[in-house]
Amino acid sequence: MAARIRREECMARSDELLKDLGLDVDLHRRIFDAVDRNFRETVLAQKIRPARMAYFDGVIHEAHGGRVREIIERRAAGDKLIGTFCIYVPEEIVLALGAIPVALCGGTSLSIPYAEKLLPRDICPLVKSTVGLALSNTCPYSPIEDLAVGETTCDAKKKTWDLLAKNGDLYVIELPQKKGARDRDLWFEEVCQFKTRLERLTGRTLDPERLAGAVRLMNRKRRALARLNDFRKEANPPLSGLDALVVMQGALLDDAIRFTERLEALNDELEDRVRRGIGVASERAKRIMISGCPSVLGNWKLHALVESAGAIVVCDETCTGSRYYENLVEEDRSGLEAQIAAIADRYLKIECSCFSPNAERIDSILRLAREHRVHGVVQYVLQYCHTYNVEAVAVAAALKDAGVPSLKVVTDYAESDTGQLRLRVDAFLEGLGR
Amino acid sequence: MAARIRREECMARSDELLKDLGLDVDLHRRIFDAVDRNFRETVLAQKIRPARMAYFDGVIHEAHGGRVREIIERRAAGDKLIGTFCIYVPEEIVLALGAIPVALCGGTSLSIPYAEKLLPRDICPLVKSTVGLALSNTCPYSPIEDLAVGETTCDAKKKTWDLLAKNGDLYVIELPQKKGARDRDLWFEEVCQFKTRLERLTGRTLDPERLAGAVRLMNRKRRALARLNDFRKEANPPLSGLDALVVMQGALLDDAIRFTERLEALNDELEDRVRRGIGVASERAKRIMISGCPSVLGNWKLHALVESAGAIVVCDETCTGSRYYENLVEEDRSGLEAQIAAIADRYLKIECSCFSPNAERIDSILRLAREHRVHGVVQYVLQYCHTYNVEAVAVAAALKDAGVPSLKVVTDYAESDTGQLRLRVDAFLEGLGR
Repeated sequence: MAARIRREECMARSDELLKDLGLDVDLHRRIFDAVDRNFRETVLAQKIRPARMAYFDGVIHEAHGGRVREIIERRAAGDKLIGTFCIYVPEEIVLALGAIPVALCGGTSLSIPYAEKLLPRDICPLVKSTVGLALSNTCPYSPIEDLAVGETTCDAKKKTWDLLAKNGDLYVIELPQKKGARDRDLWFEEVCQFKTRLERLTGRTLDPERLAGAVRLMNRKRRALARLNDFRKEANPPLSGLDALVVMQGALLDDAIRFTERLEALNDELEDRVRRGIGVASERAKRIMISGCPSVLGNWKLHALVESAGAIVVCDETCTGSRYYENLVEEDRSGLEAQIAAIADRYLKIECSCFSPNAERIDSILRLAREHRVHGVVQYVLQYCHTYNVEAVAVAAALKDAGVPSLKVVTDYAESDTGQLRLRVDAFLEGLGR
Repeated sequence: MAARIRREECMARSDELLKDLGLDVDLHRRIFDAVDRNFRETVLAQKIRPARMAYFDGVIHEAHGGRVREIIERRAAGDKLIGTFCIYVPEEIVLALGAIPVALCGGTSLSIPYAEKLLPRDICPLVKSTVGLALSNTCPYSPIEDLAVGETTCDAKKKTWDLLAKNGDLYVIELPQKKGARDRDLWFEEVCQFKTRLERLTGRTLDPERLAGAVRLMNRKRRALARLNDFRKEANPPLSGLDALVVMQGALLDDAIRFTERLEALNDELEDRVRRGIGVASERAKRIMISGCPSVLGNWKLHALVESAGAIVVCDETCTGSRYYENLVEEDRSGLEAQIAAIADRYLKIECSCFSPNAERIDSILRLAREHRVHGVVQYVLQYCHTYNVEAVAVAAALKDAGVPSLKVVTDYAESDTGQLRLRVDAFLEGLGR
């Protein structure tokens, strides 16, 4: 009862906030009630969760509430909000200039129709959901964001930025398509130019000391995420794939310092669980890696499917997984240029399928499969994502050579194909044997 | 009767050639009989065609016959065959090294199932048709090509090259995604590296004199194509859109010198036709621009639809249209580096939707619409081509502002949607009024 009243109070306060921001409160409620229900029915419905997951549940819950309020306060104090759509945006530079990076990627199907008024239907649900939130006037970050930062990772995003650039303040970072010496130069200069753009926006000059601090902070955050994921290598992991995903979704949204501290606390709890032999999976649970496209806030579909079938997701080789936390920025560089070069180097190590060739990604998948002792890999391809879809051919072949079965799942955010996907996932898991 | 016997003789000779090349002759016949029938029912079925189109019909007809034989002879004499998939590959450099550039893009739906054994279904028909010809062992250029040159223009192609690079000699040129100073540098260096790769392949050194000659030749070819397209500005154009397309398809395949000479002769005939008032369209025919994706050999679908509905295609803003022949390479540069820079500059002016932003393309569409006095524009989007599909939004808006109606057609190479497309095209043409 108390929880119910608290929840209603909380929603009333949020409605007020959204109204103050000029959002469509009714539509927002319709969309996010569904997201909320989805969250309850998947993440919150799990048993034997770590107690300290409560904080990360709250991050999801407060994404359109407390977090927005906190950012409004920081903006009132002169800090800027930077909306991002991709993990290639160097957060160190944003943080060092006192700005607030927040990923604005949409994971709900309910905002998609509003994007389809502008965009073609046959592009990826992530792009459409994101654009739909902005166009339907239900994204609380839109009215307060000082700069949105797009990138040229894929055709759909790149061309969508072209359309949106006319409607507001959108800055597009160019990512090269290969990883040769020339590409490194281009990328380094893009990062420098991004720094200059943010300096202009914030009215602040990037300070080497502050940048070194931001590098240390982001590395600490990455180490904490890596530690979390190390627990997923245990024979009986102390947390589910859904919970690991919730933490990752929070990582793209929450304040970096607070998030890292809370994650370190969660890690301590997980270590204790391991010591006490508390795990979330049955002994016979199949260990699954999800590899490919990200699952951003609102999207728990595939993880829920796999885990409700009795398996456990022990590894995410995605942008909401290893691609976000693997590789640290070198900390011992002195001088702004060398520091920025170290940052650029780290981000260019991310193994997005947008690169050609991208053999390193396949090496990573094989390594992660070994480290996490997976029984099988589900390749997750968001519908119409050509790069992951085509690269899936080479990934499947490499996994087959390594004796690891894999299943490619192409889907969007809709619930209409859940039944069919469940059948395919069940059959795949069954085929993995004992 | 004589024509029939000649045709059968010719086919027997081709079968022998294809067999010698180790191709699947039966499958080849099945696929290319359909292409041939399509060609007869669309292009050859037209009335009052210019007499000198016969040569260009022959280019299409000999694509898997005489042209292959001629290339085999040149290879025996030491020249190399360079297969291309995109008009960004600098032909001047290929020609100056005595090599033979041939576009290997597939325009038939019948080879697509063979690609879908490797590639996902939901990528563009052009990529699938091309790959399908190679994988089904029906492309006569595959066994004799010395180097295939891919590029990073779109997600589907870029990632397909990754897969195919393992199977043979495939070189991938990196195209940048923007057109800033850094991108120009990257592109210039890519062109230089391409030159080095071709020098290694051919065992020849790029000679400034020969390069200057190749630049003049390609400029002459472009001027001839531009002159051909100028005739399409006439009140009653002396050639159809289908015939202009056949010429363009030949341009990507035929020997550059012979093609240009024959095109100049055709242009003389067209000039004579204009002088004598011979046109191919009725006075009330609606003047249509086709804008967007290319229509490569085998694909006459949209042009045939538009023109069989009584309209005339007077302009192609596509890779098999203005994007191939607009902008010349500066001829007065001295020294190899300056010459290559001029070549790189010209190719970077091509307004492919792969660039972000790409406002120049919209300017060109509006200019061409004025110059060719079009009544309407059909935006042609090959299915799953995200870049043209998303950019179509901005193009339609700009056309609307300029008072030019437009229709977006998303389709593949199949005949299954022809009826539906015909209805849409008819309705669009009717809506254009008198």
